[in-house]
Amino acid sequence: MSTATAATVSSQYDQLIGLVRDANLLGSTSALLGWDQETMMPPGGLAHRARQQAQLARLSHEALVDPRVGDLLAECETDRALTADPLSATAVNIREIRIDYDKATKLPTALVEELARVSSVAQHEWALARKASDFTRFRPHLERIVELVRRKAECFGWPEGGEAWDALADLYEPGCTAAEVQRVFKPLRERVVKLLDRVLGSKTGPSNAFNELPLPIDAQERFARSVVERLGFDFDRGRLDRSTHPFCGGSHCNDVRMTSRYTETCLNDGLGSAMHECGHGMYEQGLLEEHIGTPMGQAVSLGIHESQSRLWENQVGRSRSFWTWAHGQLPASFGDAARRFSLDELYGAANIVEPGFIRVDADEGTYNLHIMVRFEIERAIVAGDLAVKDIPGVWNKLYKDYLGLDVPDDRRGCLQDIHWSFGAMGYFPTYTLGTLYAAQFFEKAVAEMPGLPNEFAAGEFGQLKKWLNRNIHAHGKRYRPGELCTVVTGKPLSADPLMRHLEGKLLPLYGG
Amino acid sequence: MSTATAATVSSQYDQLIGLVRDANLLGSTSALLGWDQETMMPPGGLAHRARQQAQLARLSHEALVDPRVGDLLAECETDRALTADPLSATAVNIREIRIDYDKATKLPTALVEELARVSSVAQHEWALARKASDFTRFRPHLERIVELVRRKAECFGWPEGGEAWDALADLYEPGCTAAEVQRVFKPLRERVVKLLDRVLGSKTGPSNAFNELPLPIDAQERFARSVVERLGFDFDRGRLDRSTHPFCGGSHCNDVRMTSRYTETCLNDGLGSAMHECGHGMYEQGLLEEHIGTPMGQAVSLGIHESQSRLWENQVGRSRSFWTWAHGQLPASFGDAARRFSLDELYGAANIVEPGFIRVDADEGTYNLHIMVRFEIERAIVAGDLAVKDIPGVWNKLYKDYLGLDVPDDRRGCLQDIHWSFGAMGYFPTYTLGTLYAAQFFEKAVAEMPGLPNEFAAGEFGQLKKWLNRNIHAHGKRYRPGELCTVVTGKPLSADPLMRHLEGKLLPLYGG
Repeated sequence: MSTATAATVSSQYDQLIGLVRDANLLGSTSALLGWDQETMMPPGGLAHRARQQAQLARLSHEALVDPRVGDLLAECETDRALTADPLSATAVNIREIRIDYDKATKLPTALVEELARVSSVAQHEWALARKASDFTRFRPHLERIVELVRRKAECFGWPEGGEAWDALADLYEPGCTAAEVQRVFKPLRERVVKLLDRVLGSKTGPSNAFNELPLPIDAQERFARSVVERLGFDFDRGRLDRSTHPFCGGSHCNDVRMTSRYTETCLNDGLGSAMHECGHGMYEQGLLEEHIGTPMGQAVSLGIHESQSRLWENQVGRSRSFWTWAHGQLPASFGDAARRFSLDELYGAANIVEPGFIRVDADEGTYNLHIMVRFEIERAIVAGDLAVKDIPGVWNKLYKDYLGLDVPDDRRGCLQDIHWSFGAMGYFPTYTLGTLYAAQFFEKAVAEMPGLPNEFAAGEFGQLKKWLNRNIHAHGKRYRPGELCTVVTGKPLSADPLMRHLEGKLLPLYGG
Repeated sequence: MSTATAATVSSQYDQLIGLVRDANLLGSTSALLGWDQETMMPPGGLAHRARQQAQLARLSHEALVDPRVGDLLAECETDRALTADPLSATAVNIREIRIDYDKATKLPTALVEELARVSSVAQHEWALARKASDFTRFRPHLERIVELVRRKAECFGWPEGGEAWDALADLYEPGCTAAEVQRVFKPLRERVVKLLDRVLGSKTGPSNAFNELPLPIDAQERFARSVVERLGFDFDRGRLDRSTHPFCGGSHCNDVRMTSRYTETCLNDGLGSAMHECGHGMYEQGLLEEHIGTPMGQAVSLGIHESQSRLWENQVGRSRSFWTWAHGQLPASFGDAARRFSLDELYGAANIVEPGFIRVDADEGTYNLHIMVRFEIERAIVAGDLAVKDIPGVWNKLYKDYLGLDVPDDRRGCLQDIHWSFGAMGYFPTYTLGTLYAAQFFEKAVAEMPGLPNEFAAGEFGQLKKWLNRNIHAHGKRYRPGELCTVVTGKPLSADPLMRHLEGKLLPLYGG
């Protein structure tokens, strides 16, 4: 296999990478401003921030569609030294830059700029509407967003037999289509519902008492910080702050900004969010510095990204072995209040299954049902089969059907998530795909390193982190999502590992 | 007087303003990144941040020197409707954009970009060198900075009989020259030294006990926050955080980012810094939103900016009337520890005169001597009469001559200030000019509103703030610095008000 090395790469390639890095540098500035808006910016800064973001979006789009990029790409694509080995850094970068370039050139700069401006405002209005639990306040902004993302989908186009939603989903999960998602979701829903019937019908089950223990917010935040540091998040190259909606942003592997949110009555809420974001954060930190600003230094897809957050949140954070360690850590942070809970009670409290309104607080058993609701709605919205004004009604109906719940207000209903406010439609299913990938990756990791649970119980997480660094993070975009799954686990993505994980854990806890 | 209104302005003018706003929008993004670097960014983010700043500097410079700006400017300058009234917003903007454009076109983009990149790193290295009290660590970075700012000065040029330093100072204080500064500083130094002789030679004086009272940092920060809010800083349009070196940055009137720093043993340090930055912050917040991104929405000069910070820090914050109010506020924040100090003791503690090493902690009596040291050194450095490696020696000698002190280490010596690390030479004298302006403005304010001290004693600061909003902030760059002073106070800048202020306060406190 002939691998192009730094010494042999062409000057065309160097120029191409220089232009792409410049475009992505603007993107990283925009990411920082986005983080600031959610965590630090005073409310008065909003209008100006929207102008800043629109300008950055315009400039980075202009940089990306620069005809020189197209010319250099065409030259690089015919240079065998660069592309002979399709898994070499040069070939991967050329392949992915081509995809990005073709996408970008289909979008008019004015649309990019307008989407940035509109979503910066809509994101803020969403936060206010959510606070006031008032969908009508958010509605005009969302209508405008939907109009713009549909226009965006039309610019990209989609293959025969597909639909507009596919064109948007492809941005987050390359190759993802609504029909394919539907094929995965339908049987998964059946298996999950069957499991939930057994779990929720059980007469025994873990106690929720620990989740009702009020603990000071500041102490919770310090504890969450100490845990994510222990998992392996590097605070010299990142931060953990608070925001309305937990997220992981920032701009590159050496400056990763995570957030969580804390509620006084449930440590597992804030801790779980922090561990979740930490999985994202360690993926970002695990991308290689030498590839900053190029596809080889970027995550594969949102599904794979989510696999990392889910894995640390669920496979690690809700495991008995994790709580064996954490159980010993709690008294130092929370004193006697925590001391009276046994390991069994803590482990059980992390695994309560109970249908609830809020996706980010959902347990592992019901989580994917939340995603299915959102997928159905956004698919219909993008197709033009559902009007924005009708979202609350449909949302509430689906929650009744899928989770058996009567949604009491929009704050706990269709206003709970930030995603649609910035035009991210086609995004939600990546959460479930990520959950499936997480289970499959973790099953493989344990097969290779059977000592992992014992390590967790001793508060050691380095082996798992290194395994993920090596097998997933360091590759950047070398593989496409499904391909990476096969390379790492030897098998294509399947729902079996997730179901084994859920059944193996929940049935014993619920007297099964 | 024919005033151009929004309805009559030309489309050339609108286009010109659009281009200038675009350039300044990038500048505001850079300002936000600068704030983030000092307050939030993890250390690992440095190298990438330097690249981001260099890119923004290049783009905003390119936008500013766009030949279209030159063409539109030339057209607007000949349009009588725009320029007939020299104090109209249109005429002021055209005048000032011309000045900025002529300056910018003299600077090669590569130099601008390199200065941004080098100073982003140097700023960080300064912080580390300061922490380690190791000038040799900072030296190579400062040498590079000096080389670049001298090249910058040469690009601008300076009038016959002037010197390179003048070209740099003009960026901060339009029209300022080293010779003029020298003419102001020499007699001021004589009068200050004479006053200090009387004060420091006195057998009586206020007690320093309150400044030695340890108070929890968090409580100090909350107190400082409550005070600046009371002074009139709008937290819906700004923030107050912590940083190594207090500053006021951010990006525009609706998003102003101030910082302070707190030491456990002296409330007056952190509180004084916060009140100082609050003066800057309220100036920024007082600029008119309609003029964002244009000269009419920008501060006159650093000297005038500093007049606002000095005025709130000194004329207000070290006054008996302010402490009459603050005295009653302390117990709620600090409990019994504060209760045992009388008003006289608090007022006295805020006005201790004692030569010290640190400029930002200096009392009003000795403050300007700190500036004079820096002015002499930077003037010689820029002229090429002093080598960077010799700064510590000269610094220490001047502190001995001017303040009678043996500087113990570089941390408390030539490494204490951030300014030179980002190339800000020609900047320090604006602190003393600001101090003079502050005294003159405040004397005028009290003459117009003799009830001010009584209002302060009741915790009311709105009248003074409104007076400053109206007379200074709202004008943006309408007047040049000296001109504004005459318009507001009826007289050109003079050292008399400052000396009256210092003598009238310090002599009674020191038994004079």
